[in-house]
Amino acid sequence: MPGEVAGPLPQKGDFSGWYNEILWQAGIIDNRYPVKGLCVWYPYGFALRKHVYGILRELMDRDHQETLFPLLIPENEFMKEAEHIKGFEDEVYWVTRGGKNQLDVPLALRPTSETAIYPMYALWVRSHADLPIRLYQIVNTFRYETKATKPLIRLREITSFKEAHTVHATWEEAEAQAEAAIGLYRAFYDRLSIPLLITRRPDWDKFPGADYTIAVDTIMPDGRTLQIGTVHHLGDHFSRTFGIRYEDEKGEQQYAFQTCYGISERSIAAVISVHGDDRGLVLPPEVAPVQVIIVPIIVGKRKEEVVEAARSLKAELVSAGYRVEVDEREIRPGAKYYHWEMRGVPIRLELGPRDIDKGVLTLVIRSGDKKEIPRKLVNSAMKEEMKLFTENLRNKADSHMRNRIKIVQGFDEAHDAIKNGVAVVSWCHQRECADILEEKTGGSILGTDIGGNMLPEIPRPCIVCGKEGTPTLLARTF
Amino acid sequence: MPGEVAGPLPQKGDFSGWYNEILWQAGIIDNRYPVKGLCVWYPYGFALRKHVYGILRELMDRDHQETLFPLLIPENEFMKEAEHIKGFEDEVYWVTRGGKNQLDVPLALRPTSETAIYPMYALWVRSHADLPIRLYQIVNTFRYETKATKPLIRLREITSFKEAHTVHATWEEAEAQAEAAIGLYRAFYDRLSIPLLITRRPDWDKFPGADYTIAVDTIMPDGRTLQIGTVHHLGDHFSRTFGIRYEDEKGEQQYAFQTCYGISERSIAAVISVHGDDRGLVLPPEVAPVQVIIVPIIVGKRKEEVVEAARSLKAELVSAGYRVEVDEREIRPGAKYYHWEMRGVPIRLELGPRDIDKGVLTLVIRSGDKKEIPRKLVNSAMKEEMKLFTENLRNKADSHMRNRIKIVQGFDEAHDAIKNGVAVVSWCHQRECADILEEKTGGSILGTDIGGNMLPEIPRPCIVCGKEGTPTLLARTF
Repeated sequence: MPGEVAGPLPQKGDFSGWYNEILWQAGIIDNRYPVKGLCVWYPYGFALRKHVYGILRELMDRDHQETLFPLLIPENEFMKEAEHIKGFEDEVYWVTRGGKNQLDVPLALRPTSETAIYPMYALWVRSHADLPIRLYQIVNTFRYETKATKPLIRLREITSFKEAHTVHATWEEAEAQAEAAIGLYRAFYDRLSIPLLITRRPDWDKFPGADYTIAVDTIMPDGRTLQIGTVHHLGDHFSRTFGIRYEDEKGEQQYAFQTCYGISERSIAAVISVHGDDRGLVLPPEVAPVQVIIVPIIVGKRKEEVVEAARSLKAELVSAGYRVEVDEREIRPGAKYYHWEMRGVPIRLELGPRDIDKGVLTLVIRSGDKKEIPRKLVNSAMKEEMKLFTENLRNKADSHMRNRIKIVQGFDEAHDAIKNGVAVVSWCHQRECADILEEKTGGSILGTDIGGNMLPEIPRPCIVCGKEGTPTLLARTF
Repeated sequence: MPGEVAGPLPQKGDFSGWYNEILWQAGIIDNRYPVKGLCVWYPYGFALRKHVYGILRELMDRDHQETLFPLLIPENEFMKEAEHIKGFEDEVYWVTRGGKNQLDVPLALRPTSETAIYPMYALWVRSHADLPIRLYQIVNTFRYETKATKPLIRLREITSFKEAHTVHATWEEAEAQAEAAIGLYRAFYDRLSIPLLITRRPDWDKFPGADYTIAVDTIMPDGRTLQIGTVHHLGDHFSRTFGIRYEDEKGEQQYAFQTCYGISERSIAAVISVHGDDRGLVLPPEVAPVQVIIVPIIVGKRKEEVVEAARSLKAELVSAGYRVEVDEREIRPGAKYYHWEMRGVPIRLELGPRDIDKGVLTLVIRSGDKKEIPRKLVNSAMKEEMKLFTENLRNKADSHMRNRIKIVQGFDEAHDAIKNGVAVVSWCHQRECADILEEKTGGSILGTDIGGNMLPEIPRPCIVCGKEGTPTLLARTF
């Protein structure tokens, strides 16, 4: 279905052209649905999604429980938290009619589920013994975007929003949960070989109704950053609004403290964008829908023998736990190579009559390397090659990111740096300095760095006012 | 969270009272969400859902591919197929506002996805080589129900609709697919030990826009039938409306033929209702979120030793592939038994100091049977007991259904039979006779039997007009 009328894939240097075209040519997303900002997942794309979210579920399930809350939120609940309304009221879709009737109470399509979940938490939380609560759900959410939409990145229906919502007895326990959530997101993106920037967003850019927001971003091929996860400490704002209270050990009623944190299909946009190349997707083996493609090289009269050998090779690898296909289509091998390279399959095994006679296989890595391996050792070779492939992906992605982060001193240098990636400046946390900085450089402040070891720790003068500042990331953002 | 203020569970003989109460007490569904007909899945209920839908996915994935289409359908697409509109227009929720703007084109929340999927199929299908297409998705769908809602059974948000949509070159291939779908649903419900009635719905009760509809029903504890799956042969109605055409081998354009078939969370309502008893859920081991609950019997000073033994027993069973919990709460054993019986856990293992000394475990089946087993043989005992448990569930459910199906000759007999279950009559397929039959008996015609071997095959005179008829099921329905 996908790719039938494809022209050549644009070079990745033309990132926007490459991105839009690869989603279709590799069978991830069809963008032709007759409503702007809504997309259709092709089966191959859905399989990629399944494996990516499989990792996320595995990590979440260690100390969270999965659940499911309704999509529709009554207007009166939605309108309870003042900051939250301000943040979302321009973006909410409203259901106003059922059949031929006008609804008495309009229903919002959840843009996020605080106002759907917290009225239930108010019923569920009674005692300190009920805490902590750590639930999550993976659902579709909706934003009436007025900006240009982009598949997987800026959508009107976010089809794959993983949102966690936790409740705790104290502010400090909620803070510890926010840190644990960042650890969890680190672990998730590590499995996808996606390097992260981790920053505390400036106050004016935090989640509506939160005490603070920590975000994880990655750098896309065009140098812009993409926010691919957020963690919010909600303090007791929502618990006061929705009446989420518990009886403490002394028998007194206390308001609870909360966090929430989310990841969307932007995680898949990151996998596609960070690892892909001019020939198509390059998928981490752990999430590749097809990990090994076997191409029988059929010449002349030994066709059946070759196909039989390919099928039995597949059976052996499948029983070893790999996702494997044999491409038996009646087209030339080159067309098959093109097809599976476009889809990012990590390893190709070619098998012809001469290979059978010699007891070998030709192994081609998605990066292009080619070697001969003994047929008998195929299982151990796969294990080794997948491991190497993953390491190489990670190293390449890490060095790509390192090359795009630049510590700068002045506005001009910052302006130049953000053409290519992220500028690190020192900033004093004041809004006025931020406004000047953004105006002079054309970048946006991501936030203050809390990501790690890449940046100098010693406070330096703010790039604008000269007062004491902290390392702050500045970039062009998606 | 669930069950905190529970009174005693009503007897199952009061099915309606029992059903509403057990959903809450067993931690399946919270029905207190502030919009009528929308429900919240508790974590335990969601885990049950995950295992049930895991079976469904496993069966579907053998020759279907999973995918995902948008929730929102533009009014112009939704309004294309005349029969379909008639069937759904009173039940559709409409999004009319985005932020503060009135939308140019109102958007329907899918009540089912034909009109979302088939415009894309029209783009995807080009040649006979593209066929068949067999895709499915598991999504939330919406019906503006005006009847009384009931959790998992009649909802305004159906949270778990598995819908498959297939495309074929000929009417006959679509018919074969419809039969394959029935086989698939048989296999699914067999895994859940739910016996089925399979009927062809009368023409006036078929899916809007279908050539014919086959439905699977089961009989609920109060004798009413519950439709738990439908399969529709769509002929070429939708392909003509949406322009789904392919080039055949002679190079001519042909309209395709289609089927669709669906299962919802009514499958879970059936598991709960058919197997449960006066003490709570009784879950088939394959879908039980907890298959084995270990209760350490803690007395006096050997507490640590007992808890340690319980944990190591759990570790052994978990590594053998079972879902196991140890209940270490500081409450009396009786309260633990009550708790886990309510949640339908198939097997309880009790373990105290004397059991440790003797090298045994006390094994209690959810049905009440109790025996001592050697600690060393716990793995093989589990395997055997789970198998027996499943067989017993199936036998009990089958005989329950057989006892509730009665072949009847006259209206009075039919009227009496449907108080308790399903009446089998002979009927001539004419609408007028159906109307009389339904009026005189108070039942509804499910359809003509195609389910199997339980019913007489020889045509007999129609119960109303005396012309030749076929075996037809009559019941009170949900």
